[in-house]
Amino acid sequence: MRKDLGLIHIYTGHGQGKTTAALGLAIRSLGAGLKVCLIQFMKTGQYSEIKALAKFKNLKIFQFGRKKFVNLKKPAKADVDLARKGLKKAEMIIKSKKYNLVILDEVNVAINFKLIALNELIRLINESPRNVELVFTGRFASKKLIKIADYVSKFELIKHPFYKGIKARKGIDY
Amino acid sequence: MRKDLGLIHIYTGHGQGKTTAALGLAIRSLGAGLKVCLIQFMKTGQYSEIKALAKFKNLKIFQFGRKKFVNLKKPAKADVDLARKGLKKAEMIIKSKKYNLVILDEVNVAINFKLIALNELIRLINESPRNVELVFTGRFASKKLIKIADYVSKFELIKHPFYKGIKARKGIDY
Repeated sequence: MRKDLGLIHIYTGHGQGKTTAALGLAIRSLGAGLKVCLIQFMKTGQYSEIKALAKFKNLKIFQFGRKKFVNLKKPAKADVDLARKGLKKAEMIIKSKKYNLVILDEVNVAINFKLIALNELIRLINESPRNVELVFTGRFASKKLIKIADYVSKFELIKHPFYKGIKARKGIDY
Repeated sequence: MRKDLGLIHIYTGHGQGKTTAALGLAIRSLGAGLKVCLIQFMKTGQYSEIKALAKFKNLKIFQFGRKKFVNLKKPAKADVDLARKGLKKAEMIIKSKKYNLVILDEVNVAINFKLIALNELIRLINESPRNVELVFTGRFASKKLIKIADYVSKFELIKHPFYKGIKARKGIDY
């Protein structure tokens, strides 16, 4: 494992591009010969990007979500269980020391919706090997997490065609 | 060509993740079977991401930059010439109708540094086929361009390890 890795990234805010920024970082890391794991919370299915990323043997992807949207006010037990399973998987992956870069996509939202506890993620960070680079994406990143992180970009939403009534388009929005 | 394409994206601001967000979008588009062209201004060389992206036959990459940094106060003629060549290439690529998504990486900066004229880019946008999706990245996006665009995300810099004295790391920052 490389010694110069081990920083923590957060991509948050309401703007478009958080997940794609993490995917782009994955591509960059793969190009440099690093091993990458992408763990997606609250998502499932063959998104276009997942299909394209299947080309890379040094990238592993795990998804912990359901087709159904999570009820924000009262999340279903199935969603809580899946998110917890996702965090458990993240712990195994990170502690295995087999990956240089581990991305927890939408984990900030999963915490905000109380699917998983912030303290659980912070415990995992503290117990992680020092040379694993970590990326946490999603709106509503907690202040505590931002304090710990090294890279924090807040993606501000200036314009999005959704607000003009344009529906999500395959290959662009998913 | 798909009829539902043709919107304009801008990724701007001082935060980290603008180019990687564009690369992630490219991956997503490639996964959906779209044809993508990435044109990079003020950049050259085998960045890690360029190596990784070579896997995709539906993606073409062109770079118009030099190793040397551009002198912001008084850009060298070589830099101006290269950037203009880049815009010319972008015009050919966009008007060829062979690509669904065309990314002009760092074009906002090239305009801000007066390597190319904003009006030239706006003319190109106006003359472009309606169903080519366009992405413009880089700090300092002009207000005029933001007005035209459909997706605008401003990446706010909250934290970056550069300010703690940590140098750019291969596979993460380039």
